[in-house]
Amino acid sequence: MSILTVDLPQRSYDINIGPGLLGQTGKVAAKFAGGRQIILVSNPTVYGLYGEQCRESLVNSGFEVILSLMPDGEEYKIIAEVLKIVDEAVKGRIERTDLLIALGGGVVGDAAGFAAAIYQRGIDFIQIPTTLLAQVDSSVGGKVGVNHFQGKNLLGAFHQPRSVIIDTDVLKTLERRDYLSGLAEVIKYGLIYDDEFFAFLEARVFAIIDQDEETLQKIIYRSCQIKSEIVAADEREAGLRAVLNLGHTFGHAVEKLGDYKTYRHGEAVAIGINAAVHLAADSGLMTAGEVDRVRDLMGRLSLPTRFPDFDPEDIIAIMHQDKKSKNGKIYLVLPRGIGDYVITDNITEEQVAKAIKEAQK
Amino acid sequence: MSILTVDLPQRSYDINIGPGLLGQTGKVAAKFAGGRQIILVSNPTVYGLYGEQCRESLVNSGFEVILSLMPDGEEYKIIAEVLKIVDEAVKGRIERTDLLIALGGGVVGDAAGFAAAIYQRGIDFIQIPTTLLAQVDSSVGGKVGVNHFQGKNLLGAFHQPRSVIIDTDVLKTLERRDYLSGLAEVIKYGLIYDDEFFAFLEARVFAIIDQDEETLQKIIYRSCQIKSEIVAADEREAGLRAVLNLGHTFGHAVEKLGDYKTYRHGEAVAIGINAAVHLAADSGLMTAGEVDRVRDLMGRLSLPTRFPDFDPEDIIAIMHQDKKSKNGKIYLVLPRGIGDYVITDNITEEQVAKAIKEAQK
Repeated sequence: MSILTVDLPQRSYDINIGPGLLGQTGKVAAKFAGGRQIILVSNPTVYGLYGEQCRESLVNSGFEVILSLMPDGEEYKIIAEVLKIVDEAVKGRIERTDLLIALGGGVVGDAAGFAAAIYQRGIDFIQIPTTLLAQVDSSVGGKVGVNHFQGKNLLGAFHQPRSVIIDTDVLKTLERRDYLSGLAEVIKYGLIYDDEFFAFLEARVFAIIDQDEETLQKIIYRSCQIKSEIVAADEREAGLRAVLNLGHTFGHAVEKLGDYKTYRHGEAVAIGINAAVHLAADSGLMTAGEVDRVRDLMGRLSLPTRFPDFDPEDIIAIMHQDKKSKNGKIYLVLPRGIGDYVITDNITEEQVAKAIKEAQK
Repeated sequence: MSILTVDLPQRSYDINIGPGLLGQTGKVAAKFAGGRQIILVSNPTVYGLYGEQCRESLVNSGFEVILSLMPDGEEYKIIAEVLKIVDEAVKGRIERTDLLIALGGGVVGDAAGFAAAIYQRGIDFIQIPTTLLAQVDSSVGGKVGVNHFQGKNLLGAFHQPRSVIIDTDVLKTLERRDYLSGLAEVIKYGLIYDDEFFAFLEARVFAIIDQDEETLQKIIYRSCQIKSEIVAADEREAGLRAVLNLGHTFGHAVEKLGDYKTYRHGEAVAIGINAAVHLAADSGLMTAGEVDRVRDLMGRLSLPTRFPDFDPEDIIAIMHQDKKSKNGKIYLVLPRGIGDYVITDNITEEQVAKAIKEAQK
């Protein structure tokens, strides 16, 4: 088991990583709960697999558990589902000192975390992410929220968990496509921040595919560490945190044009990273060999890289709507070689269109 | 004109108090706006009186103004109205660096402030409170939010404004009953925190009723100062801030049993303060003479003090539901003489019932 401490100015928290940790949920909750009640939010699929283990651990630690299940899928990451969680909390008389626990993937974590952020102006919560994507990305950093029909994550808050529990055993029941899709964010961390970590991923492709326990713990730990270092330096997203968006500005457009159904988030990010490395190469920030290394690693991990045949003009229009756009300019993060990045708003629409066309080949 | 600076660890802000300040809105906004757009939230009544003055000032400072009007009344302090503001912001392409301005009373300030708190995980906002109650209470302290059908303020956030503009001229168009009702909170500040301020209010009853400008500025300034000192010491409501609830635990129950229609918030608070001083006297915290001073001052300012004929058992049941209740105990703030307070959970239900009956005489 590994413990990573995320240092924040107001309050730090631990990310616990290892096999079998679901059975420790009650003990972890007991450290933070001011009351005797827990509202446990999950979806039927995840709850069917892990709910009882989690609930039993909480009951054994003396908690009364109120359950709130939400449907599975990005289309349910909406304010209506958050308000249903709130209604359950009110009905169960969850008090300000009680805890919320989010057991599930990114959708559950983001929606339930947002419910925790706004219920009685904020109650404490614990994240138990059950997908690789949620483990290495959405459960770290305190961003919670939901989509608006006009765009992703337009409603939300910054609300840090009191603790994160990452049970590596849960990855065994994950669909292969979901597991692999989570690796796009892992590759992103190496690409923007740590060339050694990127090389480690290249060297361990088969161990990653086989979900070797030691390798899993290492990639989750290092991914969370990189994300938390960036977040700690920039909790409110004033600047540095933007580097986490590498591939995401393109990726969001790809997800949107695919109606959020064609691609998994991680797959869209992989496609976005491919466009970003082409743009970086065109701007003299990466060599052709570095571009190939990135594409090869994603390909060996079965991630899609080819940009779908959308009109580049449509992509650019959506990128302008993206909430990371400032004063009408497209604000982009690009890799600088492997292990470093630049943030720029000096890229022209022509360059973006050219990179998309390259990535469509 | 007076300027009060509210010191907070992460970010301080100014409360500007004086006549004619609405015309300065554009200049104040220009200090904080990162973008060119403003979303101005108000209600039709307030906008009819002051909207154009405010809008013109913003347009003169180069802003493009998107208007979002919500209906007037506590029954519209609900999440549906917050989401309508969000929809307007999305439609108007309000960006993360743009500003929201809340022009109105407590309902507009709380709902619009909450919209600002959750839109794109938080955008900056300016409060322009147009009732005395909002000026001395809800616009200071960063509490924003809405009611749930099961209870007041069950949904919300802590989101500090970048600036507060208090134009004392707007009080002239306020209904007399609304103006007087706001004075309950002013009296509360004197009672819990500052005996000299309490004596000042006693000495200036006629000037207060006549809305003498100098007196107005003094009572608004000192009220905001006391509230902001308490808030600065306890931004997240861990302890000290609870003293601001003097009279409110009783008051919320009175509002609820009156279906939020019979009493103005300030009137319910005055009634609650009356119950609280009787309870304090019964606990040996106040003399009979001090109780009389409090009741006399409220009476001379035409505030109701007699507790309505609700069953004390019903009141106590609601007080238990109040979100300030902890572990099932009633958590109460009581005055200790005039100018000081105690926070206690050692009061029995019998004592509470007795105080209510006293206050019903």
